[in-house]
Parts: sequence; structure tokens; C-alpha cells
Amino acid sequence: MAFSRSSSVSFCTFLLFAVFINPAISSRISSFVKLPVAVDEFLLSSTASYCESWRLSVETNNAGPWKVVPSKCVRSIRTYYNQGQFDKDYIIVANYALAYAKTVKIGGDGKDAWVFDIDETLLSNLEYYAAHGYGSEPYNSKAFNEWVLKGTAPGFDASFKLFKGLKKLGFTIILLTGRDEGQRAITEKNLQDAGYSGWEYLLLRGEEDQGKAAAKYKSEQRSRMVKKGYKLHGNTGDQWSDLQGFALADRSFKVPNPMYYIG
Amino acid sequence: MAFSRSSSVSFCTFLLFAVFINPAISSRISSFVKLPVAVDEFLLSSTASYCESWRLSVETNNAGPWKVVPSKCVRSIRTYYNQGQFDKDYIIVANYALAYAKTVKIGGDGKDAWVFDIDETLLSNLEYYAAHGYGSEPYNSKAFNEWVLKGTAPGFDASFKLFKGLKKLGFTIILLTGRDEGQRAITEKNLQDAGYSGWEYLLLRGEEDQGKAAAKYKSEQRSRMVKKGYKLHGNTGDQWSDLQGFALADRSFKVPNPMYYIG
Repeated sequence: MAFSRSSSVSFCTFLLFAVFINPAISSRISSFVKLPVAVDEFLLSSTASYCESWRLSVETNNAGPWKVVPSKCVRSIRTYYNQGQFDKDYIIVANYALAYAKTVKIGGDGKDAWVFDIDETLLSNLEYYAAHGYGSEPYNSKAFNEWVLKGTAPGFDASFKLFKGLKKLGFTIILLTGRDEGQRAITEKNLQDAGYSGWEYLLLRGEEDQGKAAAKYKSEQRSRMVKKGYKLHGNTGDQWSDLQGFALADRSFKVPNPMYYIG
Repeated sequence: MAFSRSSSVSFCTFLLFAVFINPAISSRISSFVKLPVAVDEFLLSSTASYCESWRLSVETNNAGPWKVVPSKCVRSIRTYYNQGQFDKDYIIVANYALAYAKTVKIGGDGKDAWVFDIDETLLSNLEYYAAHGYGSEPYNSKAFNEWVLKGTAPGFDASFKLFKGLKKLGFTIILLTGRDEGQRAITEKNLQDAGYSGWEYLLLRGEEDQGKAAAKYKSEQRSRMVKKGYKLHGNTGDQWSDLQGFALADRSFKVPNPMYYIG
């Protein structure tokens, strides 16, 4: 009995260590030890809390370059999307963007522009990522390109609201994507099928853009638009590389995306 | 009876509207109507979800300039600080910053520098803000200055870890604050009492900096440091105006602060 009590105390010490010191361990414990429900919930809540901090680090770009979603955060990312918090987060971004857009004086020359990224900004690839571990699996360009070629990605309620609202206000819409020129037709079709129309430019990576870092490629493209006389009032993208570099828009709006990072 | 049932249906319709359409209304309802616990919890959770979205918008700078914390989010901000999520969020920022700092090659000339803001980055004014509605009251410069002159603001576990870790790695520490030159002595004392030491510069607003926007003032100060030969590898601040403008550090780290905005 003394031995048993001592083991139990040691196990509790270990658990306390796991929970308070290292959330990485805590989520692993709950996956191989059958724990009382209260303890299991406590460990889960500790993991959820860690994953909330991780997600904030990613969204504020504090994390810098990262490869995959930590495996212990897959459940939390799935919940983030499936229980609606992502949609609420995006709607608030759209509302702030529209509130700002309404303060912009629109000239009659069609040069007041707004830039949109496409993937995870206008089109949702959640179906693909849900089938690939919600970002916890390394990027698979072959599989992702097959998904893109299906052309079935839907839009977001928030992106429809923003896109349509901006058009109504008189902004010229510029779509700027990391997708290749060879995917122009399927991308146009997918956007139209999803419900978008009336953009002025769809800018894709040409031959000369291959291998360029996203922020450089997108800055160069924005710069070309500025040289054509466009005033870039706003820019909406799910990656910091959509929003940083040069030829920046007056205001940038970061769409939440805790599933992948493009540098 | 028919009338009563009809009122009840109307009330339910109103409730549904309140919850799904307008979280602002939902939190007000629960403050003046005695509701069944389940409904009350549902309304609260809807408000919490809104406040989570609002906080993300603020932390990613999507919200742009804002004046006060929405009154319905005071409870959620208080919980964010008092139940430890803020500390966890900041520790992860510190860990990412240190992981990056370890990749920097430190020369022997003392020119490898790291910039820190002070308020809400090295020193916590939470005690002041807790007594002033957690950011829901408009900024009161007189009351805040009285608080600053007390010189009793504590540090954060995360900021101690980062500050000490960077010093150990050999970085030169530059403190850059929006506080006035006249507050130099109390600021130095407060920092020392809190547990900080060994910074190289403490840069405060001089006569010539009065009235300058924070991002401009801070960019100019960083620029002067760059001209002195310092390499700004990292910058840590709780405001986007600490981290944007010119003479930027190679990496910027946004410390969470959902209580106030400085433009």
C-alpha cells in the first residue's frame, strides 16, 4: 500500500509538471493514459489554452516562419472552424474593412482600388485541409494542385459581404494570388461559381515570378498597379506576406488563417 | 392565454434576433432581464465569442484606431488577464523572440541591439487599468500620470525571461518609450525596483517630440540608433505604433494588449 501511495504521489507530481510546465507533454498523456474525466478535461483545457496562445502568435506574425500546425492543436483548429469562431472572426474583419472603405473618397476615374488575395481570403480550401490534418501535415503541392483543379472551393460569408460592399462603394477590385498563370481558367471559373464577379485584374504568377518569395512577388505586382495610377486603399489577405513588403495599401486587413504559413 | 403565448413568441423572436444578429443587444438583455440560466449562459457565450473576435481584430491591427474597449467586453478582458491567458500569450511571444534571438550572430562590438517599449511591455499598468474599467473608460492623462509617478508598476514573467535572456545572449538593450523626459528618474527607479537592469539607452520624449504621433517619434529614435551603428535585430512592443514606420527591426514582436490603442 505504501508503495502504491508513493507511486500515486509521483504520478501526480509528474502530472502537475506536465500541466504547468509543459503543455506538449500534457496532451500526450491524455492520449495514452485513461484519466479521470476531470483530470482529462483539465489537461485538455491546458492544451486549448496553449493552442489559443499559439494561434495568436501566428495571427500577429510573432511566430515568424512555421511549417505545420502542432499536432496537439489539431483538435482546437478543427473546433475553431467547425464551431463558427473563424466565421465570426472574419466577419468582424470585413466589418472593420467596410467601415474604413466608407471613409475613402472615391474619384470618378476608377483608380480607387482594393487588393484581395484568393486562397483562404476569397475561396475556402477548408475541405482540402480538413482531409489533410487541418494544417498538421506538411504541404503537399501535388495533392493541393489536384484540389485547386477541381475548382469547387466555396467563398466565405464575410468575403462576399466585403467584396460586394466594396464594389458597391465604387472600388476597383484587383485579385492578386500566388497561384500560377496556368491555373487562370479554373480560378476564374471557381470564383464565378462561388459567386464573385466584376474584378478588374486577376494577377497570377507568371514564368518570371517562379521561385520568388510571396511578399516580393506580391509587392512587385502591387507596385505595377501603383505605376498604372491605382491608389491602393485597402488590401485583404490571410498571410502576412500578402500585406508586407513595399507598395503597401493604406490599410491592410489580415484574415485569420491558423492552418498554414507562406513566407 | 393566447395573448401571453404570443408575447412569449415575440420575446423569443427578439431573443433570437439579439443573439444571432446583434451581440451588443444580447449582453444588454442579460443585464436587465432575469433569464433562465441556460439562456443567460448562451447570451454570455455569444458575447464572449464576439469579444474574442474583437480582441483578435485589435491584436492584428485590423481594427485600426480605436478609443475604448466595448463595454460588453470588459468582463472578457478582465477574465483574459485574471485567469492567466494573457500571461500564457505573452510567454509564447517571449519564447518565439528568444528562439529567433538565438539564431542571430552576435559580434563583439556591442552593436547588436534589441528595442523594448516600456508600458505594457516591460512594466504592467494592469492595477491602474483594473481600477479604470480595463480600458473601457476614455484615457485620463492626469490620472495615468499620477499612477506613473507612483513608480510601482511590476514587470511580467515573460518580459523578465526575454529581457534577461537577450542580455545573456549579448544583445544591447535599448528602451524606447512614449513617456516624457521629465519622467526619466521615476521610470528608471520603477524599472530597477521591478527587477530590470543593464539597459544601454532609455529614450524618452523630449521637448522636440511633443505632439508627434507615436510611430513617427519611435521611428525617428530607432533611426538615430541605426545611424549610431546599431543593428536592430528585434523590437518588442504592445502597440503597432511601436513596430511600424521606418528603421524597423529585423523582427518585430507584438505583445498582447487589448486595453488601449496608441496611434
